[in-house]
Amino acid sequence: MKKLINTPESVLPDALAGFAAAHPELTVDLDARVISRSARPAVPKVALVSGGGSGHEPLHAGFVGPGMLDAACPGEVFTSPVPDQVLAAAQAVHSGAGVLFVVKNYTGDVMNFRLAAELAAEEGIEVATVLVDDDVAVEDSTWTAGRRGTGATVAVEKLAGALAERGAPLAEVAALGARVNAASRSFAIALGPATTPAAGKPGFELPDDEIEVGVGIHGEPGRRREPLRPAHLLVAEVVDTILADHHLAAGDEVIALVNGMGATPLLELYVVFGEVHARLAERGIRIARNLVGNYVTSLDMAGFSLTLTRADPQVLELWDAPVATPALRWS
Amino acid sequence: MKKLINTPESVLPDALAGFAAAHPELTVDLDARVISRSARPAVPKVALVSGGGSGHEPLHAGFVGPGMLDAACPGEVFTSPVPDQVLAAAQAVHSGAGVLFVVKNYTGDVMNFRLAAELAAEEGIEVATVLVDDDVAVEDSTWTAGRRGTGATVAVEKLAGALAERGAPLAEVAALGARVNAASRSFAIALGPATTPAAGKPGFELPDDEIEVGVGIHGEPGRRREPLRPAHLLVAEVVDTILADHHLAAGDEVIALVNGMGATPLLELYVVFGEVHARLAERGIRIARNLVGNYVTSLDMAGFSLTLTRADPQVLELWDAPVATPALRWS
Repeated sequence: MKKLINTPESVLPDALAGFAAAHPELTVDLDARVISRSARPAVPKVALVSGGGSGHEPLHAGFVGPGMLDAACPGEVFTSPVPDQVLAAAQAVHSGAGVLFVVKNYTGDVMNFRLAAELAAEEGIEVATVLVDDDVAVEDSTWTAGRRGTGATVAVEKLAGALAERGAPLAEVAALGARVNAASRSFAIALGPATTPAAGKPGFELPDDEIEVGVGIHGEPGRRREPLRPAHLLVAEVVDTILADHHLAAGDEVIALVNGMGATPLLELYVVFGEVHARLAERGIRIARNLVGNYVTSLDMAGFSLTLTRADPQVLELWDAPVATPALRWS
Repeated sequence: MKKLINTPESVLPDALAGFAAAHPELTVDLDARVISRSARPAVPKVALVSGGGSGHEPLHAGFVGPGMLDAACPGEVFTSPVPDQVLAAAQAVHSGAGVLFVVKNYTGDVMNFRLAAELAAEEGIEVATVLVDDDVAVEDSTWTAGRRGTGATVAVEKLAGALAERGAPLAEVAALGARVNAASRSFAIALGPATTPAAGKPGFELPDDEIEVGVGIHGEPGRRREPLRPAHLLVAEVVDTILADHHLAAGDEVIALVNGMGATPLLELYVVFGEVHARLAERGIRIARNLVGNYVTSLDMAGFSLTLTRADPQVLELWDAPVATPALRWS
């Protein structure tokens, strides 16, 4: 295993210390392991809190800031944050208008965020939860009851964050988050495995000419293994798999995320985006907004995921709203 | 070789088509292979043009936009753009105030940009050139007479771009670019090689426990191979190597770029940044601004580079000026 770390045990605290030094505009509580905005809102607003295992950076800490999350709580690599940690995040940022938990659908995350919501309720903090389960690859998995949460998390956090910024009430922000999740589908392909610092060896093995179709963000098995093929054929399969599950028709618009899993060159992600664009155009579906890059990674996994979120005027308007976070920034 | 491509021959046109689809705010000439801003300036301004081999994305196309480059011309992977291509870029964006070429110091780039400058001069386009040669690892290399140009390119393009935006004359913008390059030093470490689509196999081989110290952005050999060590020891060597060559003293401020080479997780880059921050703090040097992420990559190479640019009030003020490009964006 070759990694730029000090010890496998210290990866998270060391990375958090580096994150704190790199982003002095944010508050990083190294003991509680909570990243939050430094400024409390002048007027109470719904606070967005997300979190999950580390190793998916920039998710979630990279999305803390005006227009998106209020706080993030990273667990150890590929491990859920603990309930007290999630509670600490909620306590750090609630301002009287309630807290929305954005939770990727993995058994540990769901359980620990639920426990944290109960603890928060005991303290009089109102909590609502949006569950993200956009990955069409598998219905259940080793880590999940139901579908896994992946790339749609970015859209949910961006859009619900923009709505919260405008002072919308908790129920409305939660409903928008659920609507965005329901309007999103993802599918991923791995060309190579990730290696966690703790394991020290690749999470799975792939022959030189095979890919894992439908891989999860922790390297969980997908649907099957197939031979590597030219990008346009791979993309056709990914797009068609999503469309088979998604209610998209000619004339529809989408937000498209072509996401690198961590070790795939941006040059290749642009090749993929070009093929996605062409394939959707054949179906009469227009990409209204897009992101191409590393947003929901899996350490050093090679491959990509595609997320399509159906757009409508409200979705596009919230997408275009200003955001100022380490990983997503526009005005 | 596992890559998300159609054919090795079509990587660049396919990626450019994808880039064009992803960034409709920019103009992509697929025939000339030039990416440029779509809007001509209302008042003539110095136009910044850069380029080089592909495989280093987001460099350079990802830095085209208000506040930074006016145009970029990507060559084939790890191959210089041809003179006619550079000329086409200059023609596309010059507005009467001259053109500044930002050229990384590689023999092919230097030659082809020089030829393009001569062709432009014949058309009455005034050209000045800033040569970037910030890599302290080697004095000459297989690809270079003199030091190689690497991470400082980002600072030169950002800062000179900001000055050009304000209407400064060509000589002044060129002088600022040269000053930023002279104030910058870089050093890189590879944990693993890159594979170009054309070669189809890794550019070099490293034993499981060794790193290439001082590697170049095309995988050129560095100073030596050493055992992999904990991040704080690696970073100490990188920082000390740069400081041995750089006129930095206690009380100085720097812009620090911790740059991923393409396949290194962001989690690890934050570990590295934390160690850089701590090591510099011991020397009384303060990081005033920073970037942590993939900015000057080498396809799927694992590793990182560190670039330190000495800051002063003008440098910081230009750094903070608005920029709106695919890869660098703030206001």
